[in-house]
Amino acid sequence: MLKVEHIGLAVKNFADAIPLYEKLLSTTCYKTEMVASEKVNTAFFQVGETKIELLESTDSDGVIAKFIEKKGEGMHHIAFEVADIEAEMARLKAEGFQLLNETPKKGADNKLVCFLHPKGTGGVLIELCQEAIETEK
Amino acid sequence: MLKVEHIGLAVKNFADAIPLYEKLLSTTCYKTEMVASEKVNTAFFQVGETKIELLESTDSDGVIAKFIEKKGEGMHHIAFEVADIEAEMARLKAEGFQLLNETPKKGADNKLVCFLHPKGTGGVLIELCQEAIETEK
Repeated sequence: MLKVEHIGLAVKNFADAIPLYEKLLSTTCYKTEMVASEKVNTAFFQVGETKIELLESTDSDGVIAKFIEKKGEGMHHIAFEVADIEAEMARLKAEGFQLLNETPKKGADNKLVCFLHPKGTGGVLIELCQEAIETEK
Repeated sequence: MLKVEHIGLAVKNFADAIPLYEKLLSTTCYKTEMVASEKVNTAFFQVGETKIELLESTDSDGVIAKFIEKKGEGMHHIAFEVADIEAEMARLKAEGFQLLNETPKKGADNKLVCFLHPKGTGGVLIELCQEAIETEK
Protein backbone atom coordinates (compact mmCIF):
# COMPACT_ATOMS: atom_id res chain seq x y z
CA MET A 1 0.00 0.00 0.00
CA LEU A 2 1.65 3.21 -1.19
CA LYS A 3 -0.61 5.86 0.33
CA VAL A 4 -4.19 6.76 1.20
CA GLU A 5 -5.26 7.74 -2.31
CA HIS A 6 -8.64 9.05 -1.24
CA ILE A 7 -11.34 8.92 1.42
CA GLY A 8 -14.88 8.53 0.08
CA LEU A 9 -17.67 10.42 1.84
CA ALA A 10 -21.36 9.80 1.10
CA VAL A 11 -23.34 13.03 0.77
CA LYS A 12 -26.98 13.74 -0.02
CA ASN A 13 -26.34 16.40 -2.63
CA PHE A 14 -23.44 18.35 -4.07
CA ALA A 15 -25.31 21.68 -3.92
CA ASP A 16 -24.88 21.65 -0.13
CA ALA A 17 -21.82 19.42 0.26
CA ILE A 18 -19.36 21.02 -2.18
CA PRO A 19 -19.53 24.54 -0.66
CA LEU A 20 -19.42 22.99 2.83
CA TYR A 21 -16.25 21.01 2.08
CA GLU A 22 -14.67 23.97 0.30
CA LYS A 23 -15.11 25.96 3.50
CA LEU A 24 -14.01 23.12 5.76
CA LEU A 25 -10.90 22.20 3.80
CA SER A 26 -10.18 25.76 2.64
CA THR A 27 -9.60 24.51 -0.88
CA THR A 28 -11.58 24.41 -4.12
CA CYS A 29 -13.28 21.34 -5.56
CA TYR A 30 -11.02 20.79 -8.60
CA LYS A 31 -13.03 18.14 -10.47
CA THR A 32 -16.41 16.43 -10.66
CA GLU A 33 -16.99 13.24 -12.60
CA MET A 34 -19.96 10.93 -13.07
CA VAL A 35 -19.39 7.18 -12.79
CA ALA A 36 -22.51 5.90 -14.55
CA SER A 37 -21.82 2.23 -13.80
CA GLU A 38 -21.90 2.99 -10.05
CA LYS A 39 -24.74 5.53 -10.24
CA VAL A 40 -22.64 8.20 -8.53
CA ASN A 41 -21.30 11.65 -9.09
CA THR A 42 -17.88 12.25 -7.57
CA ALA A 43 -16.29 15.54 -6.49
CA PHE A 44 -12.62 15.84 -5.57
CA PHE A 45 -10.56 17.96 -3.17
CA GLN A 46 -6.81 17.59 -2.64
CA VAL A 47 -5.28 17.63 0.86
CA GLY A 48 -1.59 16.71 0.89
CA GLU A 49 -1.16 13.48 -1.07
CA THR A 50 -4.75 12.37 -0.38
CA LYS A 51 -8.03 13.28 -2.07
CA ILE A 52 -11.36 13.74 -0.38
CA GLU A 53 -13.96 12.25 -2.73
CA LEU A 54 -17.58 13.25 -2.19
CA LEU A 55 -20.11 10.71 -3.48
CA GLU A 56 -23.61 11.75 -4.52
CA SER A 57 -26.09 9.19 -5.81
CA THR A 58 -27.51 9.79 -9.28
CA ASP A 59 -30.39 7.41 -8.62
CA SER A 60 -32.62 6.64 -5.64
CA ASP A 61 -31.68 2.94 -5.87
CA GLY A 62 -27.93 3.56 -6.17
CA VAL A 63 -25.45 2.20 -3.66
CA ILE A 64 -24.79 5.64 -2.12
CA ALA A 65 -28.51 6.43 -1.79
CA LYS A 66 -28.98 3.10 0.00
CA PHE A 67 -25.96 3.71 2.24
CA ILE A 68 -27.34 7.12 3.31
CA GLU A 69 -30.82 5.67 3.85
CA LYS A 70 -29.34 3.08 6.23
CA LYS A 71 -26.50 4.95 7.95
CA GLY A 72 -26.86 8.63 7.09
CA GLU A 73 -24.28 10.84 5.43
CA GLY A 74 -20.67 10.24 6.38
CA MET A 75 -17.53 8.20 5.79
CA HIS A 76 -18.06 5.56 3.13
CA HIS A 77 -14.69 4.03 2.20
CA ILE A 78 -10.90 4.34 2.30
CA ALA A 79 -8.93 3.86 -0.92
CA PHE A 80 -5.28 2.80 -0.85
CA GLU A 81 -3.08 3.25 -3.87
CA VAL A 82 -1.14 0.13 -4.78
CA ALA A 83 1.69 -0.37 -7.28
CA ASP A 84 0.25 -3.54 -8.83
CA ILE A 85 -3.44 -4.09 -8.22
CA GLU A 86 -3.56 -7.66 -9.51
CA ALA A 87 -0.63 -8.72 -7.31
CA GLU A 88 -2.20 -6.99 -4.29
CA MET A 89 -5.59 -8.62 -4.97
CA ALA A 90 -3.89 -12.03 -5.12
CA ARG A 91 -1.96 -11.36 -1.90
CA LEU A 92 -5.07 -10.26 0.00
CA LYS A 93 -7.15 -13.16 -1.31
CA ALA A 94 -4.45 -15.57 -0.13
CA GLU A 95 -4.55 -13.85 3.28
CA GLY A 96 -8.28 -14.64 3.49
CA PHE A 97 -9.79 -11.28 2.55
CA GLN A 98 -12.91 -11.36 0.37
CA LEU A 99 -12.72 -9.37 -2.87
CA LEU A 100 -15.95 -7.77 -4.06
CA ASN A 101 -14.76 -7.99 -7.68
CA GLU A 102 -12.47 -10.75 -8.93
CA THR A 103 -10.87 -8.62 -11.63
CA PRO A 104 -9.99 -4.90 -11.42
CA LYS A 105 -12.77 -2.64 -12.65
CA LYS A 106 -12.74 0.93 -13.94
CA GLY A 107 -13.46 3.51 -11.23
CA ALA A 108 -13.52 7.30 -11.12
CA ASP A 109 -10.43 9.39 -11.78
CA ASN A 110 -8.86 7.01 -14.34
CA LYS A 111 -8.30 4.27 -11.78
CA LEU A 112 -8.49 0.49 -11.79
CA VAL A 113 -10.17 -0.48 -8.54
CA CYS A 114 -11.12 -3.43 -6.36
CA PHE A 115 -13.18 -3.36 -3.16
CA LEU A 116 -12.79 -5.68 -0.16
CA HIS A 117 -15.82 -6.93 1.75
CA PRO A 118 -16.16 -4.90 4.99
CA LYS A 119 -17.13 -8.02 6.95
CA GLY A 120 -13.50 -9.13 6.67
CA THR A 121 -11.92 -5.74 7.39
CA GLY A 122 -13.42 -4.68 10.72
CA GLY A 123 -16.42 -2.97 9.15
CA VAL A 124 -14.37 -0.69 6.88
CA LEU A 125 -15.04 -0.68 3.14
CA ILE A 126 -11.55 -0.76 1.62
CA GLU A 127 -10.76 0.08 -1.99
CA LEU A 128 -7.51 -0.74 -3.74
CA CYS A 129 -6.67 1.49 -6.67
CA GLN A 130 -4.02 1.85 -9.30
CA GLU A 131 -3.71 4.47 -12.03
CA ALA A 132 -5.08 2.95 -15.25
CA ILE A 133 -2.59 2.73 -18.10
CA GLU A 134 -4.02 3.58 -21.50
CA THR A 135 -3.12 0.70 -23.83
CA GLU A 136 -5.68 1.34 -26.56
CA LYS A 137 -6.54 4.36 -28.63
CA MET B 1 -5.09 21.72 6.06
CA LEU B 2 -1.67 20.22 5.34
CA LYS B 3 -2.51 16.54 4.98
CA VAL B 4 -4.66 13.69 6.26
CA GLU B 5 -2.65 13.01 9.41
CA HIS B 6 -4.61 9.89 10.34
CA ILE B 7 -7.86 8.01 9.90
CA GLY B 8 -9.36 6.68 13.14
CA LEU B 9 -11.04 3.26 13.06
CA ALA B 10 -13.13 1.93 15.95
CA VAL B 11 -12.35 -1.72 16.74
CA LYS B 12 -13.67 -4.11 19.36
CA ASN B 13 -10.30 -5.41 20.48
CA PHE B 14 -6.65 -5.12 19.48
CA ALA B 15 -6.06 -8.89 19.80
CA ASP B 16 -8.07 -9.39 16.60
CA ALA B 17 -7.70 -6.01 14.92
CA ILE B 18 -3.92 -5.48 15.03
CA PRO B 19 -3.03 -8.75 13.25
CA LEU B 20 -5.87 -8.14 10.79
CA TYR B 21 -4.63 -4.65 9.87
CA GLU B 22 -1.02 -5.85 9.73
CA LYS B 23 -2.11 -8.37 7.08
CA LEU B 24 -4.34 -5.92 5.26
CA LEU B 25 -1.82 -3.07 5.11
CA SER B 26 1.21 -5.36 4.86
CA THR B 27 2.99 -3.29 7.50
CA THR B 28 3.69 -3.65 11.21
CA CYS B 29 1.88 -1.77 13.97
CA TYR B 30 4.72 0.52 15.09
CA LYS B 31 3.23 1.97 18.29
CA THR B 32 0.41 1.58 20.78
CA GLU B 33 -0.50 4.27 23.29
CA MET B 34 -3.24 4.63 25.88
CA VAL B 35 -5.09 7.95 26.11
CA ALA B 36 -6.58 7.64 29.59
CA SER B 37 -8.62 10.86 29.34
CA GLU B 38 -10.49 9.46 26.32
CA LYS B 39 -10.67 5.86 27.65
CA VAL B 40 -9.01 4.48 24.51
CA ASN B 41 -6.01 2.51 23.46
CA THR B 42 -4.56 3.57 20.12
CA ALA B 43 -2.49 1.52 17.66
CA PHE B 44 -0.69 3.09 14.69
CA PHE B 45 0.24 1.98 11.18
CA GLN B 46 1.95 4.21 8.60
CA VAL B 47 0.78 4.30 4.96
CA GLY B 48 2.48 7.02 2.94
CA GLU B 49 2.14 10.31 4.84
CA THR B 50 -1.00 9.12 6.69
CA LYS B 51 -1.44 6.95 9.76
CA ILE B 52 -4.18 4.42 10.34
CA GLU B 53 -5.14 4.72 14.01
CA LEU B 54 -7.06 1.83 15.55
CA LEU B 55 -9.16 2.80 18.57
CA GLU B 56 -10.05 0.25 21.27
CA SER B 57 -12.14 1.27 24.26
CA THR B 58 -10.59 0.69 27.68
CA ASP B 59 -13.98 0.95 29.36
CA SER B 60 -17.49 -0.23 28.53
CA ASP B 61 -18.80 3.34 28.91
CA GLY B 62 -16.05 4.92 26.79
CA VAL B 63 -16.83 6.88 23.62
CA ILE B 64 -15.50 4.12 21.34
CA ALA B 65 -17.46 1.39 23.14
CA LYS B 66 -20.61 3.49 22.71
CA PHE B 67 -19.84 4.17 19.05
CA ILE B 68 -19.45 0.43 18.34
CA GLU B 69 -22.61 -0.39 20.29
CA LYS B 70 -24.54 2.05 18.10
CA LYS B 71 -22.87 1.72 14.69
CA GLY B 72 -20.59 -1.31 14.80
CA GLU B 73 -16.88 -1.38 14.11
CA GLY B 74 -15.62 0.87 11.33
CA MET B 75 -14.53 4.35 10.35
CA HIS B 76 -14.68 6.78 13.28
CA HIS B 77 -12.95 10.03 12.28
CA ILE B 78 -10.60 11.81 9.89
CA ALA B 79 -7.77 13.92 11.30
CA PHE B 80 -6.22 16.74 9.29
CA GLU B 81 -2.85 18.19 10.24
CA VAL B 82 -2.84 21.96 10.42
CA ALA B 83 0.05 24.40 10.79
CA ASP B 84 -1.59 26.53 13.48
CA ILE B 85 -4.46 24.84 15.31
CA GLU B 86 -5.68 27.96 17.11
CA ALA B 87 -5.84 29.95 13.88
CA GLU B 88 -7.63 27.10 12.12
CA MET B 89 -10.12 26.73 14.99
CA ALA B 90 -10.85 30.46 14.79
CA ARG B 91 -11.26 30.30 11.00
CA LEU B 92 -13.68 27.34 11.16
CA LYS B 93 -15.67 28.85 14.01
CA ALA B 94 -16.07 32.04 11.98
CA GLU B 95 -17.24 29.88 9.02
CA GLY B 96 -20.01 28.48 11.24
CA PHE B 97 -18.53 25.10 12.20
CA GLN B 98 -19.12 23.93 15.77
CA LEU B 99 -16.00 23.05 17.76
CA LEU B 100 -16.34 20.25 20.30
CA ASN B 101 -13.60 21.80 22.45
CA GLU B 102 -12.99 25.53 22.61
CA THR B 103 -9.27 25.21 23.33
CA PRO B 104 -6.88 22.61 21.88
CA LYS B 105 -6.56 19.50 24.03
CA LYS B 106 -3.84 16.86 24.30
CA GLY B 107 -4.49 13.83 22.10
CA ALA B 108 -2.54 10.68 21.29
CA ASP B 109 0.83 10.79 19.52
CA ASN B 110 1.98 14.10 21.06
CA LYS B 111 -0.71 16.13 19.30
CA LEU B 112 -2.84 19.10 20.19
CA VAL B 113 -6.31 18.34 18.86
CA CYS B 114 -9.76 19.79 18.32
CA PHE B 115 -12.86 17.97 17.06
CA LEU B 116 -15.67 19.46 14.96
CA HIS B 117 -19.27 18.45 15.53
CA PRO B 118 -20.31 15.96 12.81
CA LYS B 119 -23.74 17.58 12.51
CA GLY B 120 -22.03 20.51 10.77
CA THR B 121 -19.69 18.45 8.59
CA GLY B 122 -22.00 16.09 6.68
CA GLY B 123 -21.91 13.39 9.34
CA VAL B 124 -18.12 13.10 9.42
CA LEU B 125 -16.27 13.49 12.72
CA ILE B 126 -13.34 15.75 11.84
CA GLU B 127 -10.26 16.22 14.00
CA LEU B 128 -7.72 19.01 13.58
CA CYS B 129 -4.27 18.24 14.92
CA GLN B 130 -0.93 19.90 15.30
CA GLU B 131 2.28 18.49 16.69
CA ALA B 132 2.57 19.63 20.33
CA ILE B 133 5.65 21.69 21.11
CA GLU B 134 7.29 20.83 24.42
CA THR B 135 7.63 24.08 26.35
CA GLU B 136 8.07 22.60 29.84
CA LYS B 137 10.45 20.00 31.22
